Amino acid sequence: MTFFYSPHTCALASHIALEHAGAEYQLRRVDFKKNEQQSPEYLRINPKGRVPALVTDRGILTETPALLIFIAQSFPAAGLAPLDDPFALAQVQSFNSYLCSTAHVAHAHRMRGSRWADDAAAIEAMKKKVPQSVGACFELIEREMFRGPWVMGDTYTVCDMYLFTLAQWLEADGVDLGRIPNVAEHRRRMGENALVARAIAAELAA
Amino acid sequence: MTFFYSPHTCALASHIALEHAGAEYQLRRVDFKKNEQQSPEYLRINPKGRVPALVTDRGILTETPALLIFIAQSFPAAGLAPLDDPFALAQVQSFNSYLCSTAHVAHAHRMRGSRWADDAAAIEAMKKKVPQSVGACFELIEREMFRGPWVMGDTYTVCDMYLFTLAQWLEADGVDLGRIPNVAEHRRRMGENALVARAIAAELAA
Repeated sequence: MTFFYSPHTCALASHIALEHAGAEYQLRRVDFKKNEQQSPEYLRINPKGRVPALVTDRGILTETPALLIFIAQSFPAAGLAPLDDPFALAQVQSFNSYLCSTAHVAHAHRMRGSRWADDAAAIEAMKKKVPQSVGACFELIEREMFRGPWVMGDTYTVCDMYLFTLAQWLEADGVDLGRIPNVAEHRRRMGENALVARAIAAELAA
Repeated sequence: MTFFYSPHTCALASHIALEHAGAEYQLRRVDFKKNEQQSPEYLRINPKGRVPALVTDRGILTETPALLIFIAQSFPAAGLAPLDDPFALAQVQSFNSYLCSTAHVAHAHRMRGSRWADDAAAIEAMKKKVPQSVGACFELIEREMFRGPWVMGDTYTVCDMYLFTLAQWLEADGVDLGRIPNVAEHRRRMGENALVARAIAAELAA
């Protein structure tokens, strides 16, 4: 398999999952500074011009929630998701879906406002609300979703990898970590995991 | 099970899936005009203040992509998703994830701009871009994702129910249907399905 990523993006979640799965894969950096994600070569891999993308022997997969469950199902021995319990799996999926459709989207209004408006003042107005909108998402996660010690309680799952990934952006998004102590402590513990550290180091080195 | 919905929302996708599954469930309307989704009673069901929510005997589930796979797994005889093939399931999930995190989000900038900016002019600027941003999503679906006759090719899946649901909003979003003939024709065929028609009629009648 070949995994296309860019550092400091949500691709890190699937990358960490690949490490935990013990998967054999090649890491391929997409250089956002050179706008490589919009190059004809990369658009043949992912016509959306985004990361992550996972090239497998059956075809190419995109979108973090899909990749996370695919990796968990492809490497069941790693125990990355409750694959044999539809209700518990739905809880994992619900959490991942909230991250991709609400939390990540709120964050994206800081640097990608041009997706949703052309006017420069409007794009500035979007940036201004990011501390509040991302903060509200993480406070909801802290209060209603995070069970502890892991997102799903006693079991470490792909949700932890995805939450950790989005939590990398909290300071830059202007979120007060004091209001989300469990999420902040979770991020610290995740950062100490050797496989997580290895994924981050590999992304920066490649 | 009890299914909480509001008409004209993405809840329709899961509702159609419940109909196809042959599930027994009660339908409960959340009245957005009365802002019932923010009432203390409803926030106890879904602290996000959104629909859909599915109350099961094991707990409450939210988020469309999670519900769609949960319904497919809970009623395997209905054949709503390729449950025994991780790669094919990941393709289904990737499509659903694109709808929730990109296509639905683009649409939401027409009526829910206050999620991402406080300034009235910024909210107007967001509305203005919706025909272009939603149009780009559906053109990508038409060109790169939709296989025909169904989203995933010969097999009818939850993706069809979700795409049909978001395609309800195309005219109001100002999207030119002439540029997405396969999506438009798919919507017409879906609308003729008796279970789809029954779900829509039940939402409007309740």
